[in-house]
Amino acid sequence: MGTYKLKNDIKVFKYGNPIETGAVVEEKIKAELENNLDIKFEKGHCKISIKLSSKDMVYGLGGNLGGINKRGRLYESYCIDEPLHIEDRTKLYAAHNFFIISGEKSTGYFIDFPTRIKYDVGYYNENCFNIEICGKDFYLYIIEGKDAKDISNKFLHIIGRSYIPPKWAFGYFQSRWGYRNKEEVKKVYHIFREKDIPLEGIYLDLDYMDDFKDFSISEERFSDLKGFASDLKKDGLYLVPIIDAGVKVEEGYDIYEEGIEGDHFCKDKYGKPYEGVVWPGKVHFPDFMKEETQDWFGSKYKVLTDCGIEGVWNDMNEPAIFYEQEALDEAIQYAEESKGKNLNVFSYFKLKDNFTNLANKDSYYESFYHEIDGKKFSNDEVHNLYGYYMTKSANLGLTKLLRDKRFLLISRASSIGMHRYGGIWTGDNSSWWSHLEQNINMLPSLNMCGFFYIGADTGGFGGNCNGELLTRWLQLSVFTPLLRNHSAVGCNNQEPYVFTEEVLVNSRNLIKARYSLIPYIYSEYMKSVMDYTLMFKPLSFEFGESLAKEIDDQVLLGDQLMIAPVCKPNRRGRYVYFPEKMLEISFLDEDMPTSIKEKGIQYIEYGLEDFKFFIRKNSMIPYVKPSKNVKELDQQNLKVLAYVDDEAVYNLYDDDGQSYDFIEGKNYSTEIKIIKKTDDYEIIVENDNPSIKNISFKIIDSKNNTTHKEISTC
Amino acid sequence: MGTYKLKNDIKVFKYGNPIETGAVVEEKIKAELENNLDIKFEKGHCKISIKLSSKDMVYGLGGNLGGINKRGRLYESYCIDEPLHIEDRTKLYAAHNFFIISGEKSTGYFIDFPTRIKYDVGYYNENCFNIEICGKDFYLYIIEGKDAKDISNKFLHIIGRSYIPPKWAFGYFQSRWGYRNKEEVKKVYHIFREKDIPLEGIYLDLDYMDDFKDFSISEERFSDLKGFASDLKKDGLYLVPIIDAGVKVEEGYDIYEEGIEGDHFCKDKYGKPYEGVVWPGKVHFPDFMKEETQDWFGSKYKVLTDCGIEGVWNDMNEPAIFYEQEALDEAIQYAEESKGKNLNVFSYFKLKDNFTNLANKDSYYESFYHEIDGKKFSNDEVHNLYGYYMTKSANLGLTKLLRDKRFLLISRASSIGMHRYGGIWTGDNSSWWSHLEQNINMLPSLNMCGFFYIGADTGGFGGNCNGELLTRWLQLSVFTPLLRNHSAVGCNNQEPYVFTEEVLVNSRNLIKARYSLIPYIYSEYMKSVMDYTLMFKPLSFEFGESLAKEIDDQVLLGDQLMIAPVCKPNRRGRYVYFPEKMLEISFLDEDMPTSIKEKGIQYIEYGLEDFKFFIRKNSMIPYVKPSKNVKELDQQNLKVLAYVDDEAVYNLYDDDGQSYDFIEGKNYSTEIKIIKKTDDYEIIVENDNPSIKNISFKIIDSKNNTTHKEISTC
Repeated sequence: MGTYKLKNDIKVFKYGNPIETGAVVEEKIKAELENNLDIKFEKGHCKISIKLSSKDMVYGLGGNLGGINKRGRLYESYCIDEPLHIEDRTKLYAAHNFFIISGEKSTGYFIDFPTRIKYDVGYYNENCFNIEICGKDFYLYIIEGKDAKDISNKFLHIIGRSYIPPKWAFGYFQSRWGYRNKEEVKKVYHIFREKDIPLEGIYLDLDYMDDFKDFSISEERFSDLKGFASDLKKDGLYLVPIIDAGVKVEEGYDIYEEGIEGDHFCKDKYGKPYEGVVWPGKVHFPDFMKEETQDWFGSKYKVLTDCGIEGVWNDMNEPAIFYEQEALDEAIQYAEESKGKNLNVFSYFKLKDNFTNLANKDSYYESFYHEIDGKKFSNDEVHNLYGYYMTKSANLGLTKLLRDKRFLLISRASSIGMHRYGGIWTGDNSSWWSHLEQNINMLPSLNMCGFFYIGADTGGFGGNCNGELLTRWLQLSVFTPLLRNHSAVGCNNQEPYVFTEEVLVNSRNLIKARYSLIPYIYSEYMKSVMDYTLMFKPLSFEFGESLAKEIDDQVLLGDQLMIAPVCKPNRRGRYVYFPEKMLEISFLDEDMPTSIKEKGIQYIEYGLEDFKFFIRKNSMIPYVKPSKNVKELDQQNLKVLAYVDDEAVYNLYDDDGQSYDFIEGKNYSTEIKIIKKTDDYEIIVENDNPSIKNISFKIIDSKNNTTHKEISTC
Repeated sequence: MGTYKLKNDIKVFKYGNPIETGAVVEEKIKAELENNLDIKFEKGHCKISIKLSSKDMVYGLGGNLGGINKRGRLYESYCIDEPLHIEDRTKLYAAHNFFIISGEKSTGYFIDFPTRIKYDVGYYNENCFNIEICGKDFYLYIIEGKDAKDISNKFLHIIGRSYIPPKWAFGYFQSRWGYRNKEEVKKVYHIFREKDIPLEGIYLDLDYMDDFKDFSISEERFSDLKGFASDLKKDGLYLVPIIDAGVKVEEGYDIYEEGIEGDHFCKDKYGKPYEGVVWPGKVHFPDFMKEETQDWFGSKYKVLTDCGIEGVWNDMNEPAIFYEQEALDEAIQYAEESKGKNLNVFSYFKLKDNFTNLANKDSYYESFYHEIDGKKFSNDEVHNLYGYYMTKSANLGLTKLLRDKRFLLISRASSIGMHRYGGIWTGDNSSWWSHLEQNINMLPSLNMCGFFYIGADTGGFGGNCNGELLTRWLQLSVFTPLLRNHSAVGCNNQEPYVFTEEVLVNSRNLIKARYSLIPYIYSEYMKSVMDYTLMFKPLSFEFGESLAKEIDDQVLLGDQLMIAPVCKPNRRGRYVYFPEKMLEISFLDEDMPTSIKEKGIQYIEYGLEDFKFFIRKNSMIPYVKPSKNVKELDQQNLKVLAYVDDEAVYNLYDDDGQSYDFIEGKNYSTEIKIIKKTDDYEIIVENDNPSIKNISFKIIDSKNNTTHKEISTC
């Protein structure tokens, strides 16, 4: 075991000979340390056991199911294509091995290991947190700090700054697997414009490709994508096409042939390119662990950027495998042998399960190989890096292709480290109320693991959404950096206009509210990422009351807001816990009525036609008039809604929203200070943002909910 | 269309030539009536459309998913074996076609129709309730009343009195598919006794049978069941074996041969006994629609009653069909044809789906036939009656076999009418928190449809339960008439003693609390059934505030209690809405501490070691010392906990608990009246129950939570 420190006093224990995943960017310094954990090695696996006290909370673990407190569940880090996120699923698309145990004291842990880890967080025995690392070569980081917030900020530092998308990526996007051709896409766009619903862009799912082939464009359905994209961009609209991990095996297909020629594909045990079956039929998987392959595959995005595309989503990169030919052959063979037999129930279930369980078998991942620094590793040994390195490849490629222009890039599979290269959506969820609730639970957990450009498929991907669910989901998603309504082929459409007039009106208002808030959301995003702090925080990160630890359907956004969406059907309100006095805003009303909420519990009325959130004391939020897209946001006339007890300060961050110049300091700050005087407020604005010309204020007195208005010209 | 009235002013519309299902027992009287519903017939189906106002609640629909308010979901009445109750499932084991629309005014509807009905209760359009009755022959009952409670009571009258089990059926039962032999059953029993956990009986799943054959007993694993059952009964323990719907096709097997000989099986289109495949392999399904078959199959339970068995559960009686040979052959054929082919993704999914979707295909139910009064009906035409008539058959058989002795009888599939013959468990749920929450939602809905002897598989059937979930579930199930902990083979064990010592202690205390409350639960059960009133009521049936309509994780039990279990992991409490001032009881503490809760909302602390509920003002509950089983309950010393503002009255019902003599008035009443005087209480007891010798009172003053104790000797 080697022991190290990171400069900010984080202990690192090196076991065996770990693969360098690139998750951590800070340098390790040799140090003499002892590890006091109960840690055992058995049959090549490492088992760690940690005692939990009844008061301990467990935070983190990123893209997993469960509450903000991860106790009482099993989890497994092994990225998988899991289309049915039922309650007891233990693994999804992410491998986010950072967690914090927080009680009397708080300690953070990060296991830097590229494949399977199993967690029993007090499931079978509520006082025991058992971890099984399925290997013996890994780094274990132990992070001390004064509390969970401090520890999560320290962790964000050591894994490096999150990916930063362009500002337009904060707009509203419509998506559907099943917009079969240009005409259908155009129609969606037209209806949005006609119905006056803001729209930033449209995602293109598999439909745009020719026979599911990466970097191909269907001549029949999406001819002249370049012209189409360019037409749309004239109206400020972006197209965001999908790219899958597997490359179709097909003679004459350029990507396939280049891949073979350049030796870019993962190998099977015989050294031949490994063959799995996914959407295109037989595919090879690029070996993204090789730098040359990263470069090669990354450069292929040129097909899209040449069409004027500036955003891409990488999918199926766990990687998902529907089946291996051999496994299917075996299933067929068994079926053949069963023919004419009077099966008993056990042979029947075996026959059926042979087919039912063909997808994503462990054995597939054991049977193909990557090359890392000239050494061979089975995919199983580095499984969780696949989506990460595919996205790194895309990021490097797009950076070269688009030079100084930022791009939108999200991935389905991820592990820590990938957060520097792209965002994620939370995978193939369903049109279920429980998934809306899950969505809010996941936001702070993902932030803790470095992922900031995040959002769920609003309305749900699988299943049939209805108007009430879409509306409630939008009431939450208005706050998530990635805001995409996406649904699957075979399910009912769920664009905001396909339901009743009421749903259309409510959705339109909510999406407009999103655009109003983009200056604030973008500012909070950028400050969180630049300062290595959480954008979404559990209540318990700020408030010490025991109740703050139990509530996980409310979160804090920045230091200003608390959000508490309605996550149940048939409700016209919900319980809200106020850990301190706050101001309730009904944001959609013209005169934006407010109401002071005392510390405690209330059942808040929250209709489908509302959009409500809560401003903390001595806080303010800036907003603007809504527009049809980000480009047209009128930042000249900034508005501020403030809730002031004695003094409130807000620093509104901005930049050009499209280049990387902000890194060299080309960004703007508008510092607004409001000081309560005896009968009045003093407002001090320090603004270096040339696009802001006027700021108008609405200030609510924290004592009596009276409104004070003032126009200030910068 | 024929139009009728029932004597209590219920309108009946007869469309076409409906099958007499026996759901309603009151006689129809010819009357001239008009039906003002928007009702259309199209392609042999009937479509009813009802406008919903935003304030309308929809109650009823019995054993379905969703909240107490059924709005915002799709439902389908077509009994099905559905092992995965995910959030958007539309159909389960029950076809309970009674519902109430309650807003400005309230109206009840019952569709007496034996097969598929589809409901869209404001799902696609929140203002439209659309019903599709998949046929043209049915009765439609329209029930007016002053409110939803009044209507549901009227409905309970017309469908006749619910099944009444013996008192021992209110004890705690342990069950598991996977107690492989007598020794394992014995071991469970011994551990319960050794750990001092009360236990009334053990359910026997398929394990006890010989090769899944109905009315067979495995010689190898359960030899001398009679001796075994008799030994257990000496210690007051009951065995409750399973019976499945399908009869194994096997020469020499008596039930099969008798069935063939007596022409008792459903026929295929060629007039031969229909063959489906279920657990035993190929089976025939008894045609329970024929009286002779009811008699024959019912008489077969003698095999069990001869062993001293007095309780049975009927399972797989939707009926579940794993596959038909022909469908499997086709799937195999397609597999064979796919051999060696380079499948594209669509042919692959077809191949896979051929196997995945083999179970319970609609076409199976269209391809076998029943005989009703000499006429032939496909199972599809009368599908929802199968479980009902199997249970009727069992009930008639057991009644003959056990004569004056009541028996325990539950069924998985059900439709209205069956409630007179047996209870139900809520099917093959999972060890999911959402299913615990679902459980509480379902209780009042089932009551409305006539089912009173009800309960869920506590701890969850599928999946792996943990100690926290079991404890929380028991905190609810302590109140349900049927209290059974049941789990599936392949899942972890979930007996109360397999987790930590804490879980054991908490479970033991909860099960003991159940036994303490049995006099009350039995009394409430019997009074509800005899008086045609609900045992479990939604808050909104008693309280008019709009919030009472939104809360569906709390219900009223009788007129005395409100129960509000914790249905989320990692909680040490929950929000509770008090629609009026109530008394919180911590029942497990020796001195039973109480606390007065004012009208409004509170976050109530509720630990895993607690057992809490709330007594309404001017109410009381009787209880006794716990015992290891019902027989040993010490009713001599009755205790009463009362919460008195001015005057409280309770009538404790009792009877011998085992015969039907109560019908002829052989039952006991203990009427307790407590009247508040200036500084004291007057207690008046009118008791004709000879087994009650003493009553001790604990009376809480509604003003100041002070306790007044008094011993009264009857």
